[in-house]
Amino acid sequence: MIKVGIVGGTGYTGVELLRLLALHPEVELHAITSRGEAGTPVSDVYPSLRGHVDLHYVAPDQADLAQCDLVFFATPNGVAMNTVPDLLAKGVRIVDLAADFRLKDPAKWQEWYGVTHACPELLAEAVYGLPEVNREHIRQAKLVANPGCYATAVQLGFLPLLAHELVESSHLIANGASGASGAGRGAAVPTLLSEAGENFKAYKASGHRHLPEIRQGLTKMTMQPVGLTFVPHLIPMVRGIHTTLYAKLRVEDVDLQQIFEEQFADEPFVDVMPAGSHPETKSVRGANGCRIAVHRPQGEDTVVVLAAIDNLVKGAAGQAVQNMNIMLGLDETAGLNHIGLMP
Amino acid sequence: MIKVGIVGGTGYTGVELLRLLALHPEVELHAITSRGEAGTPVSDVYPSLRGHVDLHYVAPDQADLAQCDLVFFATPNGVAMNTVPDLLAKGVRIVDLAADFRLKDPAKWQEWYGVTHACPELLAEAVYGLPEVNREHIRQAKLVANPGCYATAVQLGFLPLLAHELVESSHLIANGASGASGAGRGAAVPTLLSEAGENFKAYKASGHRHLPEIRQGLTKMTMQPVGLTFVPHLIPMVRGIHTTLYAKLRVEDVDLQQIFEEQFADEPFVDVMPAGSHPETKSVRGANGCRIAVHRPQGEDTVVVLAAIDNLVKGAAGQAVQNMNIMLGLDETAGLNHIGLMP
Amino acid sequence: MIKVGIVGGTGYTGVELLRLLALHPEVELHAITSRGEAGTPVSDVYPSLRGHVDLHYVAPDQADLAQCDLVFFATPNGVAMNTVPDLLAKGVRIVDLAADFRLKDPAKWQEWYGVTHACPELLAEAVYGLPEVNREHIRQAKLVANPGCYATAVQLGFLPLLAHELVESSHLIANGASGASGAGRGAAVPTLLSEAGENFKAYKASGHRHLPEIRQGLTKMTMQPVGLTFVPHLIPMVRGIHTTLYAKLRVEDVDLQQIFEEQFADEPFVDVMPAGSHPETKSVRGANGCRIAVHRPQGEDTVVVLAAIDNLVKGAAGQAVQNMNIMLGLDETAGLNHIGLMP
Amino acid sequence: MIKVGIVGGTGYTGVELLRLLALHPEVELHAITSRGEAGTPVSDVYPSLRGHVDLHYVAPDQADLAQCDLVFFATPNGVAMNTVPDLLAKGVRIVDLAADFRLKDPAKWQEWYGVTHACPELLAEAVYGLPEVNREHIRQAKLVANPGCYATAVQLGFLPLLAHELVESSHLIANGASGASGAGRGAAVPTLLSEAGENFKAYKASGHRHLPEIRQGLTKMTMQPVGLTFVPHLIPMVRGIHTTLYAKLRVEDVDLQQIFEEQFADEPFVDVMPAGSHPETKSVRGANGCRIAVHRPQGEDTVVVLAAIDNLVKGAAGQAVQNMNIMLGLDETAGLNHIGLMP
Repeated sequence: MIKVGIVGGTGYTGVELLRLLALHPEVELHAITSRGEAGTPVSDVYPSLRGHVDLHYVAPDQADLAQCDLVFFATPNGVAMNTVPDLLAKGVRIVDLAADFRLKDPAKWQEWYGVTHACPELLAEAVYGLPEVNREHIRQAKLVANPGCYATAVQLGFLPLLAHELVESSHLIANGASGASGAGRGAAVPTLLSEAGENFKAYKASGHRHLPEIRQGLTKMTMQPVGLTFVPHLIPMVRGIHTTLYAKLRVEDVDLQQIFEEQFADEPFVDVMPAGSHPETKSVRGANGCRIAVHRPQGEDTVVVLAAIDNLVKGAAGQAVQNMNIMLGLDETAGLNHIGLMP
Repeated sequence: MIKVGIVGGTGYTGVELLRLLALHPEVELHAITSRGEAGTPVSDVYPSLRGHVDLHYVAPDQADLAQCDLVFFATPNGVAMNTVPDLLAKGVRIVDLAADFRLKDPAKWQEWYGVTHACPELLAEAVYGLPEVNREHIRQAKLVANPGCYATAVQLGFLPLLAHELVESSHLIANGASGASGAGRGAAVPTLLSEAGENFKAYKASGHRHLPEIRQGLTKMTMQPVGLTFVPHLIPMVRGIHTTLYAKLRVEDVDLQQIFEEQFADEPFVDVMPAGSHPETKSVRGANGCRIAVHRPQGEDTVVVLAAIDNLVKGAAGQAVQNMNIMLGLDETAGLNHIGLMP
Repeated sequence: MIKVGIVGGTGYTGVELLRLLALHPEVELHAITSRGEAGTPVSDVYPSLRGHVDLHYVAPDQADLAQCDLVFFATPNGVAMNTVPDLLAKGVRIVDLAADFRLKDPAKWQEWYGVTHACPELLAEAVYGLPEVNREHIRQAKLVANPGCYATAVQLGFLPLLAHELVESSHLIANGASGASGAGRGAAVPTLLSEAGENFKAYKASGHRHLPEIRQGLTKMTMQPVGLTFVPHLIPMVRGIHTTLYAKLRVEDVDLQQIFEEQFADEPFVDVMPAGSHPETKSVRGANGCRIAVHRPQGEDTVVVLAAIDNLVKGAAGQAVQNMNIMLGLDETAGLNHIGLMP
Repeated sequence: MIKVGIVGGTGYTGVELLRLLALHPEVELHAITSRGEAGTPVSDVYPSLRGHVDLHYVAPDQADLAQCDLVFFATPNGVAMNTVPDLLAKGVRIVDLAADFRLKDPAKWQEWYGVTHACPELLAEAVYGLPEVNREHIRQAKLVANPGCYATAVQLGFLPLLAHELVESSHLIANGASGASGAGRGAAVPTLLSEAGENFKAYKASGHRHLPEIRQGLTKMTMQPVGLTFVPHLIPMVRGIHTTLYAKLRVEDVDLQQIFEEQFADEPFVDVMPAGSHPETKSVRGANGCRIAVHRPQGEDTVVVLAAIDNLVKGAAGQAVQNMNIMLGLDETAGLNHIGLMP
């Protein structure tokens, strides 16, 4: 059994890791840390775990994380970078679910997150954990930067178009929408049910933190310069991300459906739906899948890609487990065979 | 008092007309028709109207609509066109909330609605009821085609950009999202709470019936050819439409905020929010307002317009009352001074 | 015009007062206070009020409340009692929407709210503002304690049964359910959309603060001793309270429907629905009505009363305006003729 | 591997059976029938099953159900009773998720369901499939009547009280609330998102079909006569049932918490929460658990039991699989180790 630790286990990505790992056939949960809840049974904070997880939270400095084979960081941005170098030095492999190791350029990190990066020397070594793009590097990685939720859906959706140079990459548009759980478990007025329920709005239209991460990823897919406009929206529901991607085709005669199907033919977690489909977030709720459909409205030169994931699974904890499986040589789908909760 | 009739009063636009008209200071509700509910008190179908509306539904052929000053058609597409000519001949003025008189070209109507138009000779005379564009024509109109809900939000959002030829009009993108009430009160699996709740998806990505209406309206605003990609989405909530519009700027140096503010400076129902804002559908729930914000992400050459309305008010019944007010020389805001229900 | 002030105007009862008062034909909004938002335009905090309310928040000590004819307190429990005596002395009439003046016994107040009452001498003078029970006293009152939201629905539902001594009052059961706005606008984990959405639970089953208020009110209705079990629940929606009341009949032969209809025959805001009905919270959303239905399942000796209100209107701000209207000799329904937003 | 068939697989209990059985380690899905969707791939109707279920629907008369070891009926009430006798005769074991075999008295069936029972001779043989009450009988059963969703939660909650004769059983009150999926997938106006969303109401307050089933079950638990008032409510969410049970204690001195804990100590799917808890439907969403808490408000003589289940799992398909496991001698928890989806 593989010994696993979780740093920062009280947030939604933490509890989702627990939900997945508690039933993972090859994993033993060794420790889960929380500064605020040290000493509390995990299942007191999340009664859904009663009968499944017997651990108590431990304070970060009390957790013997060096004994773990792999540690997940489900901490706020800017926390992992202070602890990861030490754990790596002790031979522990790391999957960071926050943004600390996603951007290759420490200056960009500072620009978007407002603090100096604590270990810029690790940024080159860190592997961006999008298996559909980076599987071979993940296999060897000591440190994996798990992608953001929007970033996962947007990159998977644009990948076939950019990899085949089919669109004008200078004016890509990604219209995103996320359930409220993407904002985390912090108490905040805008994500109160009374505010976010029966409501729809865009946010950060002038610049969201996932933008540089997405741009960096898209840029690696093509030789062309990438320009991206990304506008996220808040959906009055709990789980799910949906992205609607728009790009202008550079070629007239192309079978988009076939190109998408070929791109993801061997991917266990990407499902290209039949032509004319509209993937629903509900179809992947609780599951690690990404469902994609490609449209060419009116047969004109704008291509529209629809992609749906569960922001907490393929957009966070599920992809983190998928990365763990790859890093440790396990079956990539181990512990991830959930079916979307419908209805 | 003005005598008003409603044809087809059991659907959501019908009950919303009743909600608005029951408190309108200058209106007397004369008759409301329904084939299926003839004889039933209106407030049996909609208990929210108990104490406010005492009418019973009457069968269409029993309603003495010719006695009305103005009749609203809140019927399914393709119904009004069979009755309107007769009422017009009797001197009754008409606001049709369906699509029957929105498209100028009867061939387009047949293409998108699948039946031959019953009175194509009226299409030229019918006035498209978007007051912010057409107020003077509405004033004289006998027959007003009330705009669709998406069409209202998209046209208001693009209006300043197209009127000033600021964007490349050949590749406009309108990403729309609507609450479930936009689909009406018909029993249907996709809009069951169990299906549409906790879910988000696009629909009709390859072509929605509002597309030709929107394109026709946008084309009138500019000398340039208009190309539009429009993808609607279903939001897990009851009321509200939000559109996120994308266009490529043709000019570098432009004060978008000022242009928007000037465009709508005298409009009672369009509110250009301060720079950096994100209008929420909730802020206009139950009210006739349209709130708009304009963004230029990262200062680059893509402009993003956000527009929010209540699909049943400014997107349907409220705009219809606004048109009635204009047609009859009343104060344009009479009966429409509602404030959005927040929270 | 009547000059009105609001103390504590950033919460949901505050904004709801603003929504109602902004359109009230006899009222001029004089001042609205907030410690945290002093200097901010009210419509910056609540964009729904843009174009309707031009006031800025003022600090409590800067507001010239003594110039008001009437002041509403929409403050947290325990705030009003420190300021009210001074304002009363200056001749200002008061409607307190919090709990400060609801309980007649200061010891009970201390027991349930944890602090000593600051002006127990006013408790006898304060009039409990449930017009359907206390209208004549309210007319003369200087200080009105506006009932709690659950308390309003439960008392109206039990009133006919207790006033006619029809049930065993020692074992009343009130099963309540409220939308999340009842918990206010404070940032808190349990009312995040991610927690309260797609979820249902009871809370405070062993004792809710509204219990002594309700018991006190019910006790005044009957000569019998009153025992009440009250269990509130949180509904995954924004607005609305529904109570399901159970009691054992003491008499066999009684026309419950008739008794309920007679009890409320002259009440402008209580609607006894036809036998067999099930009032929906949606039918009063945004409106000041209370809809009630009475059932006697299987014809046995348990009576079931269903009552629905909007917790922010008849359960708070609307009832406060109704009380103001009565206190000031206005038409009781002035500014309160809203129709429930359906759908 | 055990060969399993499903009759009536297009509804919500059908798809939930598929979700559970597709990952069940001992089960092979042999056939799934549908009159309306014969020939259609199951995953076309439910894209959530893409990649997990490859079956096509077959017409009932084309399905070789006699080859199955066990067949689930997920059909509307009144369908199974016409086919079950024949399958039983062929040695196939049956779990019926509808009401056909729940009531022992065919006259009651006729009274509540409006048709004559087709095989009253099987009612005595049919075993009511509530494992916590009937496990040993289920083990031997050829035909199991799977309990209704409300019936499961109400009976589990009352069981310890009635089994120990702790309450006055003549006046039990069960206040229930269910998500919209309990109403099934049929297109109907009352469960449209626009109607049921942002709304709360009771329904069938004067008599719900689950009443005789619950009464029959409660009556078996105690020697006292049972009187029950049951009022169900519709929650604006998809999944989950919550019941709030009220009863008058007959004894003063009793440790309710201990009695509940002992009652369910060995039950794999019933979780008695710590004293003072409030079980949330979300904590069992997608899982087969029932969480229960017992309260004695103010220490008085009314006991309150709170019970939460997922109506489609422990309230339908999950309990059906649990029954199958027991009938076939499998581990009772096989295929049912899901953790509630939180958030």
